[in-house]
Amino acid sequence: MTAKTQPPEQPHGGEFALIARHFSRPGVALPSAVVLGVGDDCALLRPTPDHELAISSDMLIEGRHFFPHTDPESLGHKALAVNLSDLAAMGARPLGFTLALALPTIADAWLAAFARGLFALSDTHACPLVGGDTTRGPLNICITVFGEVLPGRALRRDAAQAGDDLWLSGRTGEARLALAHRLGEPWAGAIEPGSLTLTQARMDRPTPRLALGMALAGVAHAALDVSDGLAGDLGHILRASGLGAEIDWSALPLAPALASLPLAQQQECVLHGGDDYELLVTAAPAAREQMQAAAKASGTPLQRIGRLLSAPGLHLINAQGQRQPLAMRGHDHFSA
Amino acid sequence: MTAKTQPPEQPHGGEFALIARHFSRPGVALPSAVVLGVGDDCALLRPTPDHELAISSDMLIEGRHFFPHTDPESLGHKALAVNLSDLAAMGARPLGFTLALALPTIADAWLAAFARGLFALSDTHACPLVGGDTTRGPLNICITVFGEVLPGRALRRDAAQAGDDLWLSGRTGEARLALAHRLGEPWAGAIEPGSLTLTQARMDRPTPRLALGMALAGVAHAALDVSDGLAGDLGHILRASGLGAEIDWSALPLAPALASLPLAQQQECVLHGGDDYELLVTAAPAAREQMQAAAKASGTPLQRIGRLLSAPGLHLINAQGQRQPLAMRGHDHFSA
Repeated sequence: MTAKTQPPEQPHGGEFALIARHFSRPGVALPSAVVLGVGDDCALLRPTPDHELAISSDMLIEGRHFFPHTDPESLGHKALAVNLSDLAAMGARPLGFTLALALPTIADAWLAAFARGLFALSDTHACPLVGGDTTRGPLNICITVFGEVLPGRALRRDAAQAGDDLWLSGRTGEARLALAHRLGEPWAGAIEPGSLTLTQARMDRPTPRLALGMALAGVAHAALDVSDGLAGDLGHILRASGLGAEIDWSALPLAPALASLPLAQQQECVLHGGDDYELLVTAAPAAREQMQAAAKASGTPLQRIGRLLSAPGLHLINAQGQRQPLAMRGHDHFSA
Repeated sequence: MTAKTQPPEQPHGGEFALIARHFSRPGVALPSAVVLGVGDDCALLRPTPDHELAISSDMLIEGRHFFPHTDPESLGHKALAVNLSDLAAMGARPLGFTLALALPTIADAWLAAFARGLFALSDTHACPLVGGDTTRGPLNICITVFGEVLPGRALRRDAAQAGDDLWLSGRTGEARLALAHRLGEPWAGAIEPGSLTLTQARMDRPTPRLALGMALAGVAHAALDVSDGLAGDLGHILRASGLGAEIDWSALPLAPALASLPLAQQQECVLHGGDDYELLVTAAPAAREQMQAAAKASGTPLQRIGRLLSAPGLHLINAQGQRQPLAMRGHDHFSA
């Protein structure tokens, strides 16, 4: 339970009723790993014996990570999706999550929609809500997820090897285009309505690549999820592993919505855009068949987009086969 | 990593440098349970085999849970202490925690002091920071703690039994008095400077009763930590266990700072004040010697303050031995 600076006040249904109304689900059976769920000082989980526990925490703030008046159902989906994406990037199987929620007011319709989006994804991945906190304050959603993985099989950032292939699930760039359109950036104005819907869905309802991540654990070397831009996030693997890399522009899948843009803007979206939640993975060339089998088994598009090099630095091989430096630039939540 | 609505910006040291500067501790060895700490998509923990995992999450917001301009070192202590207190209330041993932090600006001195308070308590309880998130936004501190406990030994709220003794660690009420003094409530004005320092420390630097909680696991029946007021929090045990209780006013330890107050204000502080982080515990009368041994072994004051009854409802036995109804009233973060 939480600290307070304020004296006791008159309840009007209040915090506990709010939780009960929207976040308790008496009819829904919990997985057997959940010994005790919401409502005590702690939740109790029983991980599978001999597994390691994978944990990640993300905080989403109105105006910074999502627009004011974002559709609450999408927001419920996305808040959990970005956390599940971190489990996917470790190759972990989800066990459960906690939700800490600060709300400026109690808006029943908002909460009902938020919970609907949240639980739809939670149910899809058998990752139940096991605890949390609600309080009044500027809108802030903090989710912590727990997963499990066999020892030694987690996909760490520091495990890439020189000579590894570089792989990417799905494709990047659409979320950045949707953001540009939402922000009214002129170059994004010409996007056609049919493409726009799909493109916005990529920003609002990202798909955590959990099945692929689990299939890659023990096969691939290193992985992370692309949240701050492909080139910037690849930089994290390169620094952690002490390596360099090159990316083949021609090997990167281009979304139809991006096809009519000038090359510079295509590259800005695909290489530096962020908010993609695709997996960026390194694996030995000898593992190519296993990688493709994992992609097929998990029903996830996966393509080879470059390679890891022993010499530091990041380069792009352009469509003409020329090698040019590529900035490891991503989004920084504290930049001015 | 986190979602974003904003286009890439120019870094100036930024988020990653900030984390490195204040929250990475290269010289400090991590406990062996931590396979992988801060810096990857997930942390990896290896709990002791055959243990259950206890998890709790708390969000602290400026202006609601702490005053603007609160001493950041105390705040670092308290943000972790209120979470560790939840582990104590389950009888769990700490394994680690994640920190998600939203900050309006990067203030190095503030962060250094916050980190100092946080890590001093973290080190005391061998509960390392293993991951988290930092972002810009209204000041918000969200901590999730992980602990472990042997199956069947966790101190759940629903495990109280009729006839159980009711026990309280330490004493309650001082944090409420300190709050009243800080808020300028007239009745708290007469507190003398010597008492004030001690009383404020009870509000600003609560002590999580971890050693006691661990010693009580397997001995006591039910427990929780008193954060929203003794009577209100006892109500959670009573509802979860389907029982009633009575509290002996004479058995409740009274802090010296409260001694000169009128009885009504003493009772408001001790029974309804909140922010105490003491353990409220139920145990069979046959376990009295074991309870006292656990208190002694953990160096924690523990006293019997009442009993659990099969008839619902909560009563106070006053100093004259009269039985009067006691409201299960606590603090509600969503009351108007």
